[in-house]
Amino acid sequence: MLTGDAVAALDPGWHPDNLAGGLLVQPGSTAEVAAVVEIARAHGAAIVPQGGRTGLVGGGITRSGEIALSLSRMNRIVRLDPLERTATVEAGAILETVAAEAALHGLEIGIDLAARGSATIGGMISTNAGGVLAHRYGVMRHRVLGLEAVMPDGSVLSDLTRIVKVSAGYDLKHLLIGAEGTLGVVTRVVLKLEPLPAATLTALFSLPSVDAVHLAVDAAGRLGSARLRMAEAMWKGYFDLTSAVQGWQDPAYDHAAPLHLALMIEGESRAALEPALLAVFEAVSDAFPGAGGLVSSSVRQDAEIWRLREDTEAVYRQYPMAPSYDVSLPLSEIEGYLEELGERLGVIDPDLSPFVFGHLADGNLHILMNRPGPLAELLANAIDAAVYRGLGARGGSFSAEHGVGSKRVGALRAHGDPVKLALMAALKAVVDPDNLMNPGKVVAPAAADPERMPSWTT
Amino acid sequence: MLTGDAVAALDPGWHPDNLAGGLLVQPGSTAEVAAVVEIARAHGAAIVPQGGRTGLVGGGITRSGEIALSLSRMNRIVRLDPLERTATVEAGAILETVAAEAALHGLEIGIDLAARGSATIGGMISTNAGGVLAHRYGVMRHRVLGLEAVMPDGSVLSDLTRIVKVSAGYDLKHLLIGAEGTLGVVTRVVLKLEPLPAATLTALFSLPSVDAVHLAVDAAGRLGSARLRMAEAMWKGYFDLTSAVQGWQDPAYDHAAPLHLALMIEGESRAALEPALLAVFEAVSDAFPGAGGLVSSSVRQDAEIWRLREDTEAVYRQYPMAPSYDVSLPLSEIEGYLEELGERLGVIDPDLSPFVFGHLADGNLHILMNRPGPLAELLANAIDAAVYRGLGARGGSFSAEHGVGSKRVGALRAHGDPVKLALMAALKAVVDPDNLMNPGKVVAPAAADPERMPSWTT
Ligand SMILES: Cc1cc2nc3c(=O)[nH]c(=O)nc-3n(C[C@H](O)[C@H](O)[C@H](O)COP(=O)(O)OP(=O)(O)OC[C@H]3O[C@@H](n4cnc5c(N)ncnc54)[C@H](O)[C@@H]3O)c2cc1C
Ligand SMILES: Cc1cc2nc3c(=O)[nH]c(=O)nc-3n(C[C@H](O)[C@H](O)[C@H](O)COP(=O)(O)OP(=O)(O)OC[C@H]3O[C@@H](n4cnc5c(N)ncnc54)[C@H](O)[C@@H]3O)c2cc1C
Repeated sequence: MLTGDAVAALDPGWHPDNLAGGLLVQPGSTAEVAAVVEIARAHGAAIVPQGGRTGLVGGGITRSGEIALSLSRMNRIVRLDPLERTATVEAGAILETVAAEAALHGLEIGIDLAARGSATIGGMISTNAGGVLAHRYGVMRHRVLGLEAVMPDGSVLSDLTRIVKVSAGYDLKHLLIGAEGTLGVVTRVVLKLEPLPAATLTALFSLPSVDAVHLAVDAAGRLGSARLRMAEAMWKGYFDLTSAVQGWQDPAYDHAAPLHLALMIEGESRAALEPALLAVFEAVSDAFPGAGGLVSSSVRQDAEIWRLREDTEAVYRQYPMAPSYDVSLPLSEIEGYLEELGERLGVIDPDLSPFVFGHLADGNLHILMNRPGPLAELLANAIDAAVYRGLGARGGSFSAEHGVGSKRVGALRAHGDPVKLALMAALKAVVDPDNLMNPGKVVAPAAADPERMPSWTT
Repeated sequence: MLTGDAVAALDPGWHPDNLAGGLLVQPGSTAEVAAVVEIARAHGAAIVPQGGRTGLVGGGITRSGEIALSLSRMNRIVRLDPLERTATVEAGAILETVAAEAALHGLEIGIDLAARGSATIGGMISTNAGGVLAHRYGVMRHRVLGLEAVMPDGSVLSDLTRIVKVSAGYDLKHLLIGAEGTLGVVTRVVLKLEPLPAATLTALFSLPSVDAVHLAVDAAGRLGSARLRMAEAMWKGYFDLTSAVQGWQDPAYDHAAPLHLALMIEGESRAALEPALLAVFEAVSDAFPGAGGLVSSSVRQDAEIWRLREDTEAVYRQYPMAPSYDVSLPLSEIEGYLEELGERLGVIDPDLSPFVFGHLADGNLHILMNRPGPLAELLANAIDAAVYRGLGARGGSFSAEHGVGSKRVGALRAHGDPVKLALMAALKAVVDPDNLMNPGKVVAPAAADPERMPSWTT
């Protein structure tokens, strides 16, 4: 166990309080994890599992007396089977490492995200991570074939199947996926792999409206000979910022358009993909004469286009700790929601103008405010309410891919279905009766409205 | 509520005891389902949810005093959004009906199975159904974006999101998916849809070994311009039977091969798909000179080939109620498992020679014995043991896509992970403390081995 200065010397990662508890253990095997859990249990000490510490919602924060249990030493690729297209890995294996190993066999994980150099498979499972390929391959939950976890009582749940078809009683691994360490420590995982594309081609479209974006994504999703790989939208404010910061300019490109869509399709060769992308563009410009765009002519230009989308840090450099949101919406609801959001923010402060960008094909929007944070509580609450209002009724979610952690416990309590909240609390109490696993995270401590509660808690 | 003769006049479906309880209610809305649950609860009467009654493991059986709750009146397609590619349906909606509606928009559900004319979406969710497209689109669990259910206390769990990205606390819909009606009644579902292919092309390969089959499936899965759609394998015994029954014969085809693989790929046009299928065949015959095959030249021939695979009834016509199994195995384990199974069955009775066929791309084998059933208990147990042995250790499952129901409760108890079994029982007790929902199904009544049990139950 590391303590004191040894812990203070470590990188706390994306939340300054991740190592604030001052205690860290790094077990090397499932049996060692189980031993740590049993010792912690005997001493009534809480455990906070940690992977790459790239989580964005404070799920890995430790407080005094809590033990950070890092999976960093359990980072092996146990087995990668190209025929089966499965990878069995320890939970601390890093996304980029596993992806590189899969690529050697012409395979990919089907999930990618910008924190790939640090994020671990166990952390990604625990937050049910998403990223840019989710419209096609689903989120982390959909990539998991098997899972092993040490439960709060020290027992080991072993479900390391390597096939997609299992209908053999309740599928309990789905309780641990997305539980952010509150129900147990994920120690081992079997992932499903997919074939890597032979070639990809990128385009950037300048578009007049959300409808035009939808049409482009739909057309790209129906190409017979090519497949849509990524579809990332940038609204004007965000595009203006990152294109200025990157010094990206193209005289033939319409910089003033209200919306910009970076598209990547995949297929047999770049040459074969060009007519496919042009067909998409034609479909869009037939319906929306204002549409423009360019097809990338080199791998360098591909990278330039994607950097416009990925340099989200640009916002934080201008507005340190800007309030940020990660919501999801059915595609047909995006336009109406953003219109209403603009109105609601305008009422709070006419100068509030959010940066909006995101994974368009799956309806996941990232919304960052043009204000440095943290905001005064009243203002923060008003903006929270403006962003979250109506998401559930529209069929979306106040939390899309980053999780609840400590940051969104209040939002979950306010916007979660009351039956779900009560059942979550009841399940947590059964699985972790002493509240040893990541206490205070995710599970709302009290019910939103006792009147609407069902009888789970009795 | 229907009783007596009115119930007796109904079709019990695929298990003769589905309506044996003699009581049936057909609520027309979620509120009515909740009302039925509350009334049943007040009278201590158990409820057995029923969809199309095509389940193959006796999950829908009713006994005296139990109420069959049929979703047959709740069969509407509430909303089908081609842009979002989502379908919101009532749980009693029939697979074929939803598929037909989706096809009008060039979309498909991504799950298909031979019981499509009767099986309901709610039933398919409850058994976590699989079918022929699972290697690509996953099983039913992976197609569900949102779900609404009436819980055993009459409360309504409402999680009707229409997006794939939700990381907002425990994803409780996954507890209901695959629960076979033991945790609540699924009333409404949001499904993710996929684009229908423009064209498909079918081939039938005669192959010398399982390795050759794997190579063909792998090659078909890596075509840049086309995509693998179905890969169904038939071992010699099964192929001989169905080809004889169908009177299917082709002088240019090697009927004597040990293995037969029906492949379907999809893409822009039949013409464009031909070279792709030939490339697959070349890859296989380069490595395995014994390989042969034919590419279908018409839609009629397509249907002939698929009928060879789909006419599983042929076995039951020859061996009524033949003992049948539905197991899954990682691809690299199939050959070794079948070899061992043959040896083990040979020890029991040298004439035992199972019919084997299945969804090869996802490792799901159906195994039917060449004996009429039901067998004497001792023999049945011996065959069960021979089939199930080693599946878990190999990373497979004793139950792949049909579920546990009442038929496989013993197998789950014998082969399920003890921690999982204990946790299942504990969750069932929390969610359904009075055991009102489909009692006696799925959840094993007692622990397999108390020595190995963790502390969930305390
Ligand atoms: C630059 C950047 C870009 C990002 N982009 C995306 C994106 O596109 N999509 C997306 O979804 N996320 C994104 N994220 C968020 C982050 O990468 C993910 O949440 C990731 O899943 C966290 O993995 P981790 O290993 O760093 O987990 P950590 O941050 O260490 O932990 C996250 C949570 O999981 C728990 N946990 C970790 N390991 C385990 C385990 N083995 N068992 C049980 N619980 C565990 C922790 O207790 C904590 O609650 C991004 C983050 C950054 C910094
Ligand atoms: C010819 C044939 C071919 C088949 N092929 C396949 C195949 O390829 N792949 C496959 O996976 N299966 C297959 N099956 C099995 C069967 O079709 C599936 O299990 C299907 O999911 C059952 O749907 P159902 O509506 O008929 O459910 P039912 O048989 O009515 O019920 C099945 C179980 O689900 C529960 N249930 C039903 N509806 C609800 C609800 N709304 N809420 C809660 N619980 C509910 C029941 O209590 C029962 O336990 C096949 C069956 C037949 C007869």
